[in-house]
Amino acid sequence: VPDTPPFGTVAIVGVGLIGGSIALAARERWSGVLVVALDRPAVLAHALGSGAIDRGVGTLAELGDPDLIVLSAPVRQNVELLEQLAASGTRAIVTDVGGTKRHMLEASRALGGAMTFIGGHPIGGAERGGFAFARPDLFTGRPWIFTPPAETGPAADSEVGRALDRLFQFAGGLGARPSTMDAGQHDTLMAFLSHLPQLTASALMETAGAAAASEGLRLAGRGLVDTTRLASSPPGVWRDICATNADAIGQALDQLIARLTELRSDLARGDAIEAVFAEASRWRAELMKGRE
Amino acid sequence: VPDTPPFGTVAIVGVGLIGGSIALAARERWSGVLVVALDRPAVLAHALGSGAIDRGVGTLAELGDPDLIVLSAPVRQNVELLEQLAASGTRAIVTDVGGTKRHMLEASRALGGAMTFIGGHPIGGAERGGFAFARPDLFTGRPWIFTPPAETGPAADSEVGRALDRLFQFAGGLGARPSTMDAGQHDTLMAFLSHLPQLTASALMETAGAAAASEGLRLAGRGLVDTTRLASSPPGVWRDICATNADAIGQALDQLIARLTELRSDLARGDAIEAVFAEASRWRAELMKGRE
Repeated sequence: VPDTPPFGTVAIVGVGLIGGSIALAARERWSGVLVVALDRPAVLAHALGSGAIDRGVGTLAELGDPDLIVLSAPVRQNVELLEQLAASGTRAIVTDVGGTKRHMLEASRALGGAMTFIGGHPIGGAERGGFAFARPDLFTGRPWIFTPPAETGPAADSEVGRALDRLFQFAGGLGARPSTMDAGQHDTLMAFLSHLPQLTASALMETAGAAAASEGLRLAGRGLVDTTRLASSPPGVWRDICATNADAIGQALDQLIARLTELRSDLARGDAIEAVFAEASRWRAELMKGRE
Repeated sequence: VPDTPPFGTVAIVGVGLIGGSIALAARERWSGVLVVALDRPAVLAHALGSGAIDRGVGTLAELGDPDLIVLSAPVRQNVELLEQLAASGTRAIVTDVGGTKRHMLEASRALGGAMTFIGGHPIGGAERGGFAFARPDLFTGRPWIFTPPAETGPAADSEVGRALDRLFQFAGGLGARPSTMDAGQHDTLMAFLSHLPQLTASALMETAGAAAASEGLRLAGRGLVDTTRLASSPPGVWRDICATNADAIGQALDQLIARLTELRSDLARGDAIEAVFAEASRWRAELMKGRE
């Protein structure tokens, strides 16, 4: 990665966990980069105070003329922001960091405009949202999936291809491992890898909490604590993810419900139960390959 | 806790994660205690070499005349061991550390004999089973639930009451917080707090693994990793827990499946989804009270 930043001025809309970490990582990586951010005044004050951003603004128009605009609000708010950006006539490269990708791609197709939009999904993740939990190493070694329209690779000789090349340099510079994927394939895969675990953790926490009540929860071991960690994720983010990936998540839920129903009827059948546990244990070992 | 150990000689049958940790913790707590263990020769060699036990044997008869016998094999093997102990005429106090408690209590009632049996359940937990993962601080600050027959407290003036008093001293000496609970109440509560998370983690791992395959799993974030940690638990232990608590686990599974089915139909309904997530988040905060 050259020391010249792929984007001289980066505008970040929504300085939460992801947006804030992008700001911190970009300024740590490229001394010459200028980071402008749009958020509520209290968040901007915090981000300015910690040196994550150079300038904070309250409207899209005040962002000026950035080279890159990163939308990092919840998904449906990102769609509204994209509409406003298309109407503004900006010629910037625009990306987002939302957990679902078809919805944004469809919106960008309908909008046109002078901007070049390529959706993205950095797979970091931390227990809590918000700028307070942002850190410059959030993306180190983690995948960052871009979902360009059609089959555009970073080497393609087109406006989108050149934009993708610069986005790869940007994500790679922040420590991530950039790749591309079809938006539909992304949403189906993430329904199982990300959205299903989230819904499962929340449903499990609600079920166990309602049955055990506060006093009973004090007798819970580390198993319940780990399995329900995701249940403290921000509700607003997940509301949008569920709404914009309902078909794929529905299918993932169907498969989990079918497995749980099968397990239920096998409880007293030792061999069947042991086989399920052994199979799950094998997949778990696969999941952990190359992780600490 | 006095420096005189509540039990001068402790016999541990099955020196895995729990049995091994009891041995290590007891020897660390009371210099005068003698720990005898029964297990396979390789495990005994490991336990002897690390100083966890004083003597290793291959049969119950060789245990001699211990004051306390701790059964820490999988649940159904514990039942067989209890039958052999009853037949041997031992006058020892006997406890177990299995995750279900009705089954052992019923077995002990049917057996009689000169021994005094009181089931127990130390709630520690670690990612992996086996003596290699045993550690003397496994029980520090954690609950240790005893399930005496009927409503016997540690102060009761009876043989069971006196045995319970000594077991409380023993568990407390190892750093745990001992308490009593009705065996049926224990099994119902643990169906939700321990057995349901285990089955959920395994079912989720199997579903996500089958859908994403090895290549896809590399794109998973920390969410799936945490939510499926339990999926690497030893299958044999869980086979027995499912078999001996099938009714209570079945009811817990029914409630989880009902919630997941509800979530499935609410995916596109933002308010309903947000309400579920908010409720789960509140229970999660309850669960985490007083934990790090």
